[in-house]
Amino acid sequence: MRDVRILEIKQSVFADNDRQADELRCELKEKGVFLLNLMSAPGSGKTTTLMKTIEALKDKVKIGVMEADIDSDVDARTIAKSGAKVIQLHTGGMCHLDAAMTRQGLEGLETGDVELAILENVGNLVCPAEFDTGASKNAMILSVPEGHDKPLKYPLMFSVCDVVLVNKIDVLPYFDFDMDKCREYVLMRNPNAKIIPICAKTGEGIDKWTNWLLEQVESWRSKS
Amino acid sequence: MRDVRILEIKQSVFADNDRQADELRCELKEKGVFLLNLMSAPGSGKTTTLMKTIEALKDKVKIGVMEADIDSDVDARTIAKSGAKVIQLHTGGMCHLDAAMTRQGLEGLETGDVELAILENVGNLVCPAEFDTGASKNAMILSVPEGHDKPLKYPLMFSVCDVVLVNKIDVLPYFDFDMDKCREYVLMRNPNAKIIPICAKTGEGIDKWTNWLLEQVESWRSKS
Repeated sequence: MRDVRILEIKQSVFADNDRQADELRCELKEKGVFLLNLMSAPGSGKTTTLMKTIEALKDKVKIGVMEADIDSDVDARTIAKSGAKVIQLHTGGMCHLDAAMTRQGLEGLETGDVELAILENVGNLVCPAEFDTGASKNAMILSVPEGHDKPLKYPLMFSVCDVVLVNKIDVLPYFDFDMDKCREYVLMRNPNAKIIPICAKTGEGIDKWTNWLLEQVESWRSKS
Repeated sequence: MRDVRILEIKQSVFADNDRQADELRCELKEKGVFLLNLMSAPGSGKTTTLMKTIEALKDKVKIGVMEADIDSDVDARTIAKSGAKVIQLHTGGMCHLDAAMTRQGLEGLETGDVELAILENVGNLVCPAEFDTGASKNAMILSVPEGHDKPLKYPLMFSVCDVVLVNKIDVLPYFDFDMDKCREYVLMRNPNAKIIPICAKTGEGIDKWTNWLLEQVESWRSKS
């Protein structure tokens, strides 16, 4: 098992985050690094989904993971078990990552031959949605126990995401979660959003998600 | 059913939130209004817990509820069904409420004869913990599907809360949630925290919570 490195991220001083994000995206394009920004509420299953994603894609694409957290390194320790390159980013209380903070993370990760860099953002449905990290695509996880009404209550998060993974579908029988209403509310916020029901624990639906992701990486890298 | 009023909260201009919070707490003390600040991640069951809380306490104490949300009024509409006085606060994208914003909410609610005012904060485990709202007590809900490791990852939230409700215990058999570890981690962050397992859906454990809350309200009001 790899050692887990921890990087203390400094708060960004740049007011013009959008420009910083565009610059980072251009640089990553030149380097051939596809950056996925993965967001969700606390406990929606980001790390378990990442473990299954790495398992499915590790022989097809070189993956590096940045685990952002306010404190602790439990997620990076988990990801390290997959054999993927990983770094733990400590945000020092900050509730999101912006482009400059993401840049620090990528430098700490030392992308090198990494083709797919994944940022596991801070567990939060509000603030991370407000800051473009420079990612090629934004993904978010909504888990069944959270309820199908979340797109009504956290509109920006659902607007900025290219794909919404509806996780923990194995517990659908135990919750009042209406998948049709969920789809309706997500598409109300973002008519172009791809919605994929998954169960990260059992692996159900993970192939649909990783196929979609691999297509994005390949199409993005071929357009350089 | 009462009409749901919606108040657009203005962003606070006060830099010294702690002083504002202390001032608000003093004023509420004079008015005999106990303010509970209820926090959690999205979808942990704040509104369902509130419904059960109102049901249990409505004949013992006069309750008013402020439902903070970035958008939508679904929670206030639900609470209105309980017959409790309720107002919906729209934070306009803000991820938390500070003391000045809470003051606006209380003015909008028109506390009058309210003895127990409850603020349902924005669903977020990060930012709301950083701002003293002027509340008499802070409560938070951690739901079983989120996992027992959350106190490791969101340290401040667990440090500032007087009580932690562990909700959705009816689904314990379907999740890898270790209640002993949860207690250990919560108490590591805050040795004085009261931990109460509940199921807001079925009502299990709600009496322990409402008894605790009523004791707090009575002890606080008697000390004026």
